[in-house]
Amino acid sequence: MIKYIDLSHEITNDTPVYPGDAPARLSQYRYLDTDGYNCFKLETGMHAGTHIDIPMHLIESTVTIDKMPLDTFAGDGCLLDVRGKSMIGYEDKYLSYVSKDDVVLLYTGYDNKYGTEEYYSEHPVIEKELADFFISRQIKMLGFDMPSPDRYPYEIHKILLTNGISIIENMANLSKLLNVGAFEIVAFPLKIRAEASMVRAVARI
Amino acid sequence: MIKYIDLSHEITNDTPVYPGDAPARLSQYRYLDTDGYNCFKLETGMHAGTHIDIPMHLIESTVTIDKMPLDTFAGDGCLLDVRGKSMIGYEDKYLSYVSKDDVVLLYTGYDNKYGTEEYYSEHPVIEKELADFFISRQIKMLGFDMPSPDRYPYEIHKILLTNGISIIENMANLSKLLNVGAFEIVAFPLKIRAEASMVRAVARI
Repeated sequence: MIKYIDLSHEITNDTPVYPGDAPARLSQYRYLDTDGYNCFKLETGMHAGTHIDIPMHLIESTVTIDKMPLDTFAGDGCLLDVRGKSMIGYEDKYLSYVSKDDVVLLYTGYDNKYGTEEYYSEHPVIEKELADFFISRQIKMLGFDMPSPDRYPYEIHKILLTNGISIIENMANLSKLLNVGAFEIVAFPLKIRAEASMVRAVARI
Repeated sequence: MIKYIDLSHEITNDTPVYPGDAPARLSQYRYLDTDGYNCFKLETGMHAGTHIDIPMHLIESTVTIDKMPLDTFAGDGCLLDVRGKSMIGYEDKYLSYVSKDDVVLLYTGYDNKYGTEEYYSEHPVIEKELADFFISRQIKMLGFDMPSPDRYPYEIHKILLTNGISIIENMANLSKLLNVGAFEIVAFPLKIRAEASMVRAVARI
């Protein structure tokens, strides 16, 4: 029996975005009682809510997210519990946890600040040694429940993306994976000619 | 070894939409050489490209697509080859093909007209007897490589949606499923507070 766990924040007209990003605007423009059907329209950048950054976001590339192979965005999941750390560093025990082609998820617990200013200004950051470890392990993708792995000038972003590791930002509900054993992550982006995509990130158990 | 087949059309600045729907506009607003990063923004209705209609699109409901259970949107796939028919009707052989909770895909071949006016005005339609069969079989979702199961006044749309069968419209590449044996469909919508969602529809083999 397959069970799915939703790891995504909701896209609404109030969805918070990273400072400087295009806001998300969601509005209804057709109504059942007057038009015969309901329709909403959305105006947004690609980095609203739970989304995937690919190399083209920060490095010279013409490969948009629609051109990337689907199996880039699905694979065995590996949850690392990193709650309570402001600097998320490498630990030797990760050698036995993380395998090639894993989708690694960092559970910071910081999504409890989602929707506050602090969420963007005070979130934990990933140390270079840990990013280098993920690269040497050839993981497939890195996700976390915070808005960014780093702050300006975005060195960790660039190290990961330059080495072909795409990033799932603003994940939710990672606590639900703490005691589930083996799981897969499925996070297929929209087939959109862009540098990132909003995504429904899901664990399949 | 899991293999994925993409069943989705691309979202670009030229993505065609159903006559009367909000157009899709995709444009770049940040550039790596001047801003330090690339960003695109999207303005669109939910029915651009490959997308899912849920009951709220055409019937009285307050349940937006983000509120629907994830397992509504994934399940065993069942491909029916209905190429060459302008009216897609019930056939007795479907009794042995279609099971409860299947995601049924109608392969019309009509996606070879995608991007033309004819795609919207001349597409095949589904007969009521076939819609009733899908309802009696309690299928999970119905998808097809054409823009709609019907034309105004959208009786088939309403029959399916009223009975809880969501619809994947504008699918692509269904020919690739002709000889693959068993497959699953994964088509998780964005977690968006709306009556429909663009979707990356994928077959998992």
